Amino acid sequence: MHRILSTSAYAFLIAAPALADPLPSWNDTNSKTQIIDFVDSVTDSTADSFVPVADRIAVFDNDGTLISEHPIYFQAAYAFDRLREKAADDPSILNSDVLKAANDGDMQGVMAGGMEGLSSVIDVSHSGISIDDFQADARDWLESAQHPVSGLNYGAMTFQPMVELLTYLRDEGFTVYIVTAGGVDFVRSFALDAYNVPPNLVVGSQGNAEYQIGEDGTPVVMKSGGVYFVDDKAAKPVGIMRTIGKRPILAGGNSDGDFQMLEWTTAGEGPSLGLLIHHTDSEREFAYDRDTPIGKLSEGLDQAADRNWLLVDMARDWGTVWTGGK
Amino acid sequence: MHRILSTSAYAFLIAAPALADPLPSWNDTNSKTQIIDFVDSVTDSTADSFVPVADRIAVFDNDGTLISEHPIYFQAAYAFDRLREKAADDPSILNSDVLKAANDGDMQGVMAGGMEGLSSVIDVSHSGISIDDFQADARDWLESAQHPVSGLNYGAMTFQPMVELLTYLRDEGFTVYIVTAGGVDFVRSFALDAYNVPPNLVVGSQGNAEYQIGEDGTPVVMKSGGVYFVDDKAAKPVGIMRTIGKRPILAGGNSDGDFQMLEWTTAGEGPSLGLLIHHTDSEREFAYDRDTPIGKLSEGLDQAADRNWLLVDMARDWGTVWTGGK
Repeated sequence: MHRILSTSAYAFLIAAPALADPLPSWNDTNSKTQIIDFVDSVTDSTADSFVPVADRIAVFDNDGTLISEHPIYFQAAYAFDRLREKAADDPSILNSDVLKAANDGDMQGVMAGGMEGLSSVIDVSHSGISIDDFQADARDWLESAQHPVSGLNYGAMTFQPMVELLTYLRDEGFTVYIVTAGGVDFVRSFALDAYNVPPNLVVGSQGNAEYQIGEDGTPVVMKSGGVYFVDDKAAKPVGIMRTIGKRPILAGGNSDGDFQMLEWTTAGEGPSLGLLIHHTDSEREFAYDRDTPIGKLSEGLDQAADRNWLLVDMARDWGTVWTGGK
Repeated sequence: MHRILSTSAYAFLIAAPALADPLPSWNDTNSKTQIIDFVDSVTDSTADSFVPVADRIAVFDNDGTLISEHPIYFQAAYAFDRLREKAADDPSILNSDVLKAANDGDMQGVMAGGMEGLSSVIDVSHSGISIDDFQADARDWLESAQHPVSGLNYGAMTFQPMVELLTYLRDEGFTVYIVTAGGVDFVRSFALDAYNVPPNLVVGSQGNAEYQIGEDGTPVVMKSGGVYFVDDKAAKPVGIMRTIGKRPILAGGNSDGDFQMLEWTTAGEGPSLGLLIHHTDSEREFAYDRDTPIGKLSEGLDQAADRNWLLVDMARDWGTVWTGGK
């Protein structure tokens, strides 16, 4: 950038787009400045902090970081709807208290079983279907089912400032991955439309899958039930190494499930940035941190300052929240 | 391309590079023609067979497809060398007949234990080390250890015609993945230098891995021992869906371990190409198909014609074999 500006004949023509605000939905606070300063520092080829394009890997959590997650992870809401449909056909699948609670829409009953209970609902409702069919169904649901608090379709509740950040990073040569504890097939079903993130750039939790030849002779990859990999907490760096094979230089999250991903990213030798979205906005979205089972942020809050992680204050830093309005 | 050629003023300037032979190490046989015709058909934006860049996914097996694999997979040869080093320090790790045979360089004794025996040698020799340190060590070995038959360093025994094919496909807008039954960390250690394939485009078998905080407080991802995923046969389409999340349109392999990957790729709705490298060249490389435990090709040979898979005859179709000479 410095080189372009110093070439005065071209500066007027070429520099113009760079002067446009790359993050218009971010307020002019320290968070925005810190993000742009970091991107400038790693893309300035004359600086010691320069990072080549091949190493500009950014990873973002999904639930609570790129899209809302309250009162319950959207994938769980989808699983409850699908479980009810399946149970209407075959009530015998409701063979645990948690599954019965989910079928009755009793959220407290489900959460009494912890994340394991939630996982069992997702498992039962998401198996015995091909990945292709599952994704088409999930996409339909995200575009039609209505969120109980906002009244928006779930798919409209992605965060506009984060969509802008992902675009900005890609424009600056970053490869932007999603690294989610959510199911990889679910997140892939909407990530391209919502975030411009294609399937191969989504890393996530996985159920078992099986290659089968269908009755008509057509091969298909089926979701066969059972949990294969839970991409959360200390497993996030492992999932990154399994799939990306390289340490990122930027990691964004919002909960303690992202702690190790930020820890690992910011322990790299070169420049790095860790950022945490702090849900502080009870008016426009939801306010929560230490006292919630969904997206709990406690260790991250305690350690962000010491570790130089950027704590994004949603109420203060964001001019807009949802892509779909409000 | 047709459009460019019809614009006569530019044709001379722009079409010139396309006229250069993209596959100079391939002889002018039907195999070369068929590959180029396929690429032309999916990149011609005026044709019904056109495939957009986002869907131009190509997947290639590694051992025996991009690099030699006889008399034994190179990763196994590396594992034997490392096992001997580890056993010199601690002979108690040789707690099975297969491990003892490997330590004695008794290949027949190792293969008596089948692929499971081979896998146990790899497991013992490849664990208790960080992924970063493992890859640096593997890279050193590939550049220094000498192949018992060719006398070349192992790293020099990649196939020049396939390196050209990968480059050609990338130039035509394909994303080129390696999908290997070999260990992903091992193949990633050399794939960028050898094939220009970065770590995130290598899918493979995986051992268990663990995120740990070292004694000096530095986080590290360790290879902790035990097999996590074997990316072979019917698991290849599963590995592709786990990582790439989309069906490829071109698949290349050389053994029955690649059968399902080709089957699945060529069952897609649009145009597709499956190709199998047939090791027919006892003079320049090795001749084998049905009667070998390493890279056995039998079902693929039987079905290639019916399925319209391209059977590449190494002796007939390749002008050069190894990147490192001969």
